[in-house]
Amino acid sequence: MSHLSTGAVDAGPRSPEPAAPPRRGFTTLVYVLTAVVPAVIALGLLVAVSGASGRGGTTPAIGTAPIDHTVQLFVSIAMVILAAKVFGRLARRLGQPPVVGEIFAGICLGPSVLGALAPEAVGWLFAPELRPVLQGLADLGLIALMFVVGQESRQTSLRGQGRIAMAIAHAGVAGPFLGGALLAILLYRDWAGPRADPVVFAMFLGSALSITAFPVLARILAERDMLRSMLGRLSMLCAAIADVVAWCLIAAMTAIAGRDTPARAVLTVLLVIVYGVAMVWLGRPWLERIFTALEGRGEPLRLLVLLAGLLLSAAATSAIGIHAIFGAFLYGLCCPAGLLTRLTGQIDMVAGTLLLPFFFVGTGLRMDVWRSGFDAELVGVALLVIVVAMLGKLAGPMLMARSSGLSWHDSTGLGVLLNARGLTELVVLNLGLALGLIGDRLFVALVVMALVTTAMTAPLLGLLDRLRARRHGHARRL
Amino acid sequence: MSHLSTGAVDAGPRSPEPAAPPRRGFTTLVYVLTAVVPAVIALGLLVAVSGASGRGGTTPAIGTAPIDHTVQLFVSIAMVILAAKVFGRLARRLGQPPVVGEIFAGICLGPSVLGALAPEAVGWLFAPELRPVLQGLADLGLIALMFVVGQESRQTSLRGQGRIAMAIAHAGVAGPFLGGALLAILLYRDWAGPRADPVVFAMFLGSALSITAFPVLARILAERDMLRSMLGRLSMLCAAIADVVAWCLIAAMTAIAGRDTPARAVLTVLLVIVYGVAMVWLGRPWLERIFTALEGRGEPLRLLVLLAGLLLSAAATSAIGIHAIFGAFLYGLCCPAGLLTRLTGQIDMVAGTLLLPFFFVGTGLRMDVWRSGFDAELVGVALLVIVVAMLGKLAGPMLMARSSGLSWHDSTGLGVLLNARGLTELVVLNLGLALGLIGDRLFVALVVMALVTTAMTAPLLGLLDRLRARRHGHARRL
Repeated sequence: MSHLSTGAVDAGPRSPEPAAPPRRGFTTLVYVLTAVVPAVIALGLLVAVSGASGRGGTTPAIGTAPIDHTVQLFVSIAMVILAAKVFGRLARRLGQPPVVGEIFAGICLGPSVLGALAPEAVGWLFAPELRPVLQGLADLGLIALMFVVGQESRQTSLRGQGRIAMAIAHAGVAGPFLGGALLAILLYRDWAGPRADPVVFAMFLGSALSITAFPVLARILAERDMLRSMLGRLSMLCAAIADVVAWCLIAAMTAIAGRDTPARAVLTVLLVIVYGVAMVWLGRPWLERIFTALEGRGEPLRLLVLLAGLLLSAAATSAIGIHAIFGAFLYGLCCPAGLLTRLTGQIDMVAGTLLLPFFFVGTGLRMDVWRSGFDAELVGVALLVIVVAMLGKLAGPMLMARSSGLSWHDSTGLGVLLNARGLTELVVLNLGLALGLIGDRLFVALVVMALVTTAMTAPLLGLLDRLRARRHGHARRL
Repeated sequence: MSHLSTGAVDAGPRSPEPAAPPRRGFTTLVYVLTAVVPAVIALGLLVAVSGASGRGGTTPAIGTAPIDHTVQLFVSIAMVILAAKVFGRLARRLGQPPVVGEIFAGICLGPSVLGALAPEAVGWLFAPELRPVLQGLADLGLIALMFVVGQESRQTSLRGQGRIAMAIAHAGVAGPFLGGALLAILLYRDWAGPRADPVVFAMFLGSALSITAFPVLARILAERDMLRSMLGRLSMLCAAIADVVAWCLIAAMTAIAGRDTPARAVLTVLLVIVYGVAMVWLGRPWLERIFTALEGRGEPLRLLVLLAGLLLSAAATSAIGIHAIFGAFLYGLCCPAGLLTRLTGQIDMVAGTLLLPFFFVGTGLRMDVWRSGFDAELVGVALLVIVVAMLGKLAGPMLMARSSGLSWHDSTGLGVLLNARGLTELVVLNLGLALGLIGDRLFVALVVMALVTTAMTAPLLGLLDRLRARRHGHARRL
């Protein structure tokens, strides 16, 4: 294309396409004239100018504030992503999914652990001036996560297991929802947030308990090499269906929460339904067409269009009055799955490694065990919540699965898998706290529940395996 | 690994490993008991609770402020990255490197264009509450860019052209530096910033004019298929050497600027030298060892370690008292190039598509043509700066190259290539504005210079090609 010298790539030293043989003395002279002389003159000028009495002399000190914040910001970002990785690897060593460690890292960097040991460190790392940036990174991570969850829910094909999965998923939502609503009656007076009305509080606790951590589930299954097994696929399918139902409930709850009048609540719900229907009926084929047209047009462009759509969909639901995560989830459900597998994987990787740690830290910063009062009552409520959450998620799906023809062993495994709540639960809990539906203390209890139900999944599955192995050994011996 | 059912992947519909034949009636009964009954009870509870006079009834409206900011933030982010892409593609259509369009997009979104047409739009998109987040994204993009520039400077091997390149690079720094210093004497009284003393102002203008846009240069060469040609490699090499020299000058200038006493300036310079030497002598082999050890250990982990180091190095120079970009550049120079090519490419892609647009927008927001007074004097200074910048960058390197044995055609091409300043210039200009070394009006003139010198590169190269083609045709006819 260019006619400019495209000469030998391995041109010899000091002789690139000589038009005239270079004369050493002349070259040196030109070097002195073009490089040395100007440099010397410039230096002389600087010295002369520094002698002259200019306007200067009274150079005011630069406000060092912005520079200091840069230091804090960069150190803070580095610490957060490193801590998440280190704790994630530790968790893996202990046979846990990394997310358990990452959530724990967030709590440790907050007032509950680091703040108790070295309050100045927390104050410096997470200074008020940095909070908007860290919160922004957390928000971006959150909508990236919800997009990935939506995409993964979509990729889960029904493959003939639809009816069983649907029944189990319904049982897996209805049971915990009832449990949560019952809990709400018990806890409303003392543990609800300042803006909770009883119905919304019950809806919130009910849907918070019915959440399954789809991403964590997928990772646990992958680590145990169960992703393609019948049980693995069935539990993914149940989780996907249950998640869609649970998020619809949460969206409805958010739409109602805090509207001044019933009319406004109805309007919000209507807008949400209109947006959802528009996305599924119009957005979905439209997105399919766009991304088909963009195929082979360069990864950066597709990434950009994907992200711009994601941001706008998140902004749309946020503008309607429910949280941005719903728009992100819906967008993930509506984007063509096959075309974007690689891109989704990259977004998942980047969000998981670099953005979600800020969400965990945000959760940790909001969770101050000492300030909220760490007493027997709190422990009691945390235990109660854990038991109700487990009963709801385990019992219903297990019975439903058993009655559909699965063995007791597989039915129990399914219940155990659906019981993992992971970071999806944290999303819901932070939402409830932000909406003023739950108090600080209940927030702590619920975060503990999320951690415990996630952390018990792997050991419980291991226990089930051992039980079966022993029974098999027993049977063989007989 | 797991003993849990790993049964047939393509299990038939409704019969996944039946332990007992499923009885339809019984299954339905269990479904009703586990899913329908709890749902109905929960619904009844909600209705009952809503009737009861709870603590609620007076649900206070939720502060919608944070939700509104989320909408603004997401829309703002989407607009910025989309505008950069659209303008970048337009620029490419016009035969320009995309960065010219991206810089222009930033200016258009600022007060100079969009602000003049629809001030509310700028106020909404870039509300004060969002600024920290947008600035944070710009900062992250900036240090990612400087890391990539450092890596690219390192990858440029000397390959026997070292002496020529060194001489040309020196000429390419000394000439513009002298030009800038001379300009500084002329402009100091009326155009310097509030915190500039004459020496620092002269150093700033001098080094600002000696910058070459390494990334833009590489992209222009790639688009013209000249990356592997003698001229392409030589100009990259010259640009790399000139950039290291220019950044050292700028670092020295930043170290001096705004220190209260000479002793503090000397201390800062000493700390910078110590850090630089430590990075090159200790950091470099250490980083080589770390990344060799991490090879094959999964991309996320290597990305994380790379970024954490980058952030900490940037924070270190920022803490010393010079800008974070120096630490990022130095880190890029010291990281092993071969091991990280793929990762650097990905960082380059993500930073260029998703983060640097915020830097351009930041520049555009700081550049208010109308408020700073758009008059004949400003145009005159802009023209003067452009002429001096071009003379300095073109003349010296051209003469030096010619005297080293290159043809007039290649020598001119080299000068034209080194004259492109692109976004690297913007980095320096924003630094000067932040340090209070240049006034608003000079900032506008210098940004225009950066745009013009970058935009003229491709047309001038085309002109050179046509001239040579015509001469060749002429020679053939004779």
